[in-house]
Amino acid sequence: MAYELYYWDGIPGRGEFIRLALEEAGADYVDVVRKDTAAMMKIMAGRTEPHIPFAPPFLKDGDMLISHVANILFYLGPKLGLAPDDEALRYFTNGLQLTIADFLVEVHDTHHPIAVSQYYEEQKGPALARAASFLDERLPKYLGYFERVLQQNPHGGKHSVGNRLSYVDLSLFHVIEGLLYAFPRAMTRYEARYPALAALHGAVRERPNIKRYLASDRRLSFNESGIFRHYPELDRDDG
Amino acid sequence: MAYELYYWDGIPGRGEFIRLALEEAGADYVDVVRKDTAAMMKIMAGRTEPHIPFAPPFLKDGDMLISHVANILFYLGPKLGLAPDDEALRYFTNGLQLTIADFLVEVHDTHHPIAVSQYYEEQKGPALARAASFLDERLPKYLGYFERVLQQNPHGGKHSVGNRLSYVDLSLFHVIEGLLYAFPRAMTRYEARYPALAALHGAVRERPNIKRYLASDRRLSFNESGIFRHYPELDRDDG
Repeated sequence: MAYELYYWDGIPGRGEFIRLALEEAGADYVDVVRKDTAAMMKIMAGRTEPHIPFAPPFLKDGDMLISHVANILFYLGPKLGLAPDDEALRYFTNGLQLTIADFLVEVHDTHHPIAVSQYYEEQKGPALARAASFLDERLPKYLGYFERVLQQNPHGGKHSVGNRLSYVDLSLFHVIEGLLYAFPRAMTRYEARYPALAALHGAVRERPNIKRYLASDRRLSFNESGIFRHYPELDRDDG
Repeated sequence: MAYELYYWDGIPGRGEFIRLALEEAGADYVDVVRKDTAAMMKIMAGRTEPHIPFAPPFLKDGDMLISHVANILFYLGPKLGLAPDDEALRYFTNGLQLTIADFLVEVHDTHHPIAVSQYYEEQKGPALARAASFLDERLPKYLGYFERVLQQNPHGGKHSVGNRLSYVDLSLFHVIEGLLYAFPRAMTRYEARYPALAALHGAVRERPNIKRYLASDRRLSFNESGIFRHYPELDRDDG
């Protein structure tokens, strides 16, 4: 039976991390909301379902309903051949994915530091301040960490974990894609600063299944409704 | 061998969710940093260790090094008898813990909406706005969700998952403790609004191992360096 992915339509958002894993593995899945938004809202509002999710994305696999990107990937990873076999490495992989989750909250809060219920334009002043501290301190801290993880991998710097592609590598590809979209000026010199991350980004983009996916209409474009938004006034030159 | 917990000294912080599980289970553990801060910094700065964590808390169990609260509890839960036996329920449990993690970021950002590197006093204006939207919109959304999870549990509303205590129940106890400390005015009527959560909070506090722990010097007090901070100007009456 096909996996059912539930996520908001119209943005790559957090759903994209799941899509990339399913696409790389050539798995059979349905992106439910692109055809039927009501199906997701019905599950979320369910008054009898005991395993209600707080928010999308969530995945249905038969009777299982799993929420949160890292949790979904922890479950799918071994089934899709995108997680290490070793138990200790699986927990390390999950820790990396949770670090990506933390990073995404900070990316989102550059344009929404005050209230998710308000428009960006209503919180632009604090957003300018938050984006500045993000670009000065947080972006280098997170990218520096992921670069170090790649560089210190005893199997060489091509993968984050072990000696083959994992779902974390796919997620890091998308993080870089998003940063290049949202903060092109701040990212100008990123290839020199984070060479292993840049090489990983390039390698993932050339994988046959990913390449096919990126060219398809299943891949949604970044836009100013998602996590990664391009507001030129929040961006600035590196260094 | 004893579990080794690594977390900042001086605040309950995110380490507390791990401590509560270890204490409830009567597990043998060392809260390393309370005696030796350098040990934690050494691991974090390691240039050869392949599994470096981004941030505390992390747990060492022999050769395993696991970061992030939800990841640590996913690992420890079954060993401590604080996770369900059923696989689907374990992923549901992890999803709940990750929802708590998301909530904690929002609690933290009420006093730090702009930059973690700056003092609260430097971002007090945006903090007032963020705290207002937190109390109006986010707090009821999250507590309402957890209340619903308890109410819709087919085994009755005493536990979040299945028919016995899990690490999520312990974490929800601490979340309520923190909210009562940080936002006493906003929480005045919480027992009437969220009766199942309030009952869970009371029941966990009376568990013998938890009661003993709360009275010990292993339990750190809330203060204005942690996630849950009491700044009266950020609090306000409910409704």
